[in-house]
Amino acid sequence: MSTTAPKGFLASGVAAGIKAESKDLALVVNTGPEFHAAGVFTSNRFQAAPVTWSRAAIADGRLKAVVLNSGGANACTGKAGYEDAVRTAAQVAKELEIDTEDVAVCSTGLIGVPLPMEAVLDGVRLAVAALDSEGGPDAAEAIMTTDTVPKTVAYTNPAGWSIGGMAKGAGMLAPALATMLVTITTDALISQPALEKALRLACSITFDRTDSDGCMSTNDTVLILANGASGVVADEDDFTIMLAQVCWTLAHKLIKDAEGAEHDIEVQVVGAASEADALEAARAIARSNLFKCAVFGNDPNWGRVLSAVGTTSAQFDPEHVDVFFNGVPVFLDGQPGADRAEVEFARDVIVQVRLHAGDDSATVWTNDLTYGYVKENAEYSS
Amino acid sequence: MSTTAPKGFLASGVAAGIKAESKDLALVVNTGPEFHAAGVFTSNRFQAAPVTWSRAAIADGRLKAVVLNSGGANACTGKAGYEDAVRTAAQVAKELEIDTEDVAVCSTGLIGVPLPMEAVLDGVRLAVAALDSEGGPDAAEAIMTTDTVPKTVAYTNPAGWSIGGMAKGAGMLAPALATMLVTITTDALISQPALEKALRLACSITFDRTDSDGCMSTNDTVLILANGASGVVADEDDFTIMLAQVCWTLAHKLIKDAEGAEHDIEVQVVGAASEADALEAARAIARSNLFKCAVFGNDPNWGRVLSAVGTTSAQFDPEHVDVFFNGVPVFLDGQPGADRAEVEFARDVIVQVRLHAGDDSATVWTNDLTYGYVKENAEYSS
Repeated sequence: MSTTAPKGFLASGVAAGIKAESKDLALVVNTGPEFHAAGVFTSNRFQAAPVTWSRAAIADGRLKAVVLNSGGANACTGKAGYEDAVRTAAQVAKELEIDTEDVAVCSTGLIGVPLPMEAVLDGVRLAVAALDSEGGPDAAEAIMTTDTVPKTVAYTNPAGWSIGGMAKGAGMLAPALATMLVTITTDALISQPALEKALRLACSITFDRTDSDGCMSTNDTVLILANGASGVVADEDDFTIMLAQVCWTLAHKLIKDAEGAEHDIEVQVVGAASEADALEAARAIARSNLFKCAVFGNDPNWGRVLSAVGTTSAQFDPEHVDVFFNGVPVFLDGQPGADRAEVEFARDVIVQVRLHAGDDSATVWTNDLTYGYVKENAEYSS
Repeated sequence: MSTTAPKGFLASGVAAGIKAESKDLALVVNTGPEFHAAGVFTSNRFQAAPVTWSRAAIADGRLKAVVLNSGGANACTGKAGYEDAVRTAAQVAKELEIDTEDVAVCSTGLIGVPLPMEAVLDGVRLAVAALDSEGGPDAAEAIMTTDTVPKTVAYTNPAGWSIGGMAKGAGMLAPALATMLVTITTDALISQPALEKALRLACSITFDRTDSDGCMSTNDTVLILANGASGVVADEDDFTIMLAQVCWTLAHKLIKDAEGAEHDIEVQVVGAASEADALEAARAIARSNLFKCAVFGNDPNWGRVLSAVGTTSAQFDPEHVDVFFNGVPVFLDGQPGADRAEVEFARDVIVQVRLHAGDDSATVWTNDLTYGYVKENAEYSS
């Protein structure tokens, strides 16, 4: 049920003609009674026009609608591109009779190409007309680019409130930088500061640790809208935990659908002196092309794991590090360990590095580097 | 003529049986009268046993011989591996009647596999017997792994001294982390501190800016030996410039032979507020898999260039940045520029980013990300 699983949300997904054939414009509307919102945006300094607009729109902690399009990122499009983002928000506001400043805009697709604004504005009218309390799946479909499946999630807390969400993106792997766009809704009663705090924490341990190819999009946006329509005050810890679960589920759907990926890799670094150390080491492994090619070739190449860890400033003694591939200790206490032939490969690969420097740990999710990745990112006409 | 181009150096390359069929052990010997030496080693914290040994051996600024093997990196091999490196140096010392501490050892090949020491020690004897004042090319051949051609260089300064060198490695791209090994010789009369200073400077603007796949080896070693046999005192500036030229030439031969590469890419960042800024931006571009796949597909994808630059902390205003592909301004002053169809692609691709933030610049050399790269690094049995 996606973004329409919680009470008081409407959504739609329509074919506006931005792309040739498929649905390409989505709308998610909060009908209240509350209109709290929080967002996390790309830290790329070349941020797309819709990101610039949406950052400003959400600055007051309030949103009533999110309009999203595939078929064009509206990034690096200059002042005209920014005006297009504002016009899109204004059109939604006009149709819904709300303020333009209460409408966030998200775009995904090619960089540097102006949006076909006639199609976008027509699409907004179509999307408003199609708004439905069961429209979440249509919206999730309309934001797909190279995604092969729509990505949605919905959980209900026993206390009586729900969180729903949709995501698109192939782990920031997509051609010409297709984007990670996430819209989450909840009918829990929760204050805006608590909502914001929960979103930042949830993102920091889920989307922020999902690193498919190390490339950061100009458009990445995660938004959450909360309307309190359940009438139930959410315990803040419970809410944060469930929100993290929602983000984790969506992040995994992104990784599993990453372009060309043939293995889903979980990189665990344990026994670190600090979480920052663990994260630095895990990221270094997840970004090693040599390591990722080895996994594609079903090779438990611990040498490539170590060489990536060796480039970090994490605290450890090279003489006392272990590497496990799917549970097999291929490198133990600074020496070659079990025969690598003992490692059984499947779609899921877990690499665990034990630093023996403390009690902290971190996990990063990534995927392998394959012919498919190169093909999609080299041959795609852009 | 490689390392035997300068006067007073002997070299050899032999088939010791470490690998199945080809030459696999090289020896370079300085016959004096001086024995100055300097080295630059990998900063990877998992440094291979020969790196640990050679760092210690060269600490006094003096070397008489360098022994190098392909067919095994002797990395992550524990104490036994270190003992193997020392035994190799000791065998060279015994045969040449010099001190073990005057022999550096370099290894390249698979990580984590013990060297076949009987073959190595036999090989040392063969190599000593084969030493020749024209043996440089044989030595260069013996250190090849996935290299398709030996890489050598020799220049003579009009003042009467020469520099020669050999290199192996596919830009740190090689399967299971094959290594960049470089040995340079000179018959110039130059002090050890000046030699060391010149080597560090030359490496910092050549090998250090050659970034094929962002992966750092456990074995990278650049050594220079100086014997003063020309009898000519080298002007230190002249020497530094020529040494940089030697390193630059070898670095380019590495990039041109990088595994699977179909384009050689020069990333220039100009108009930066500092050289560090320029270098950070250039490295970010050179390490973007999306950008590198686009070049493989002959796509002047400036969006991927910008998105890489946007992840850095370099000083610039996103509204006033330009991107040129092979001279064509595809992005100008923060806006889409010339039609990307105007860009003509060849083997050599020059990407220039103008930050308009100052007068500093930096160049990084890399190559594209291709099916060939994935194939070599996924299918190689290790």
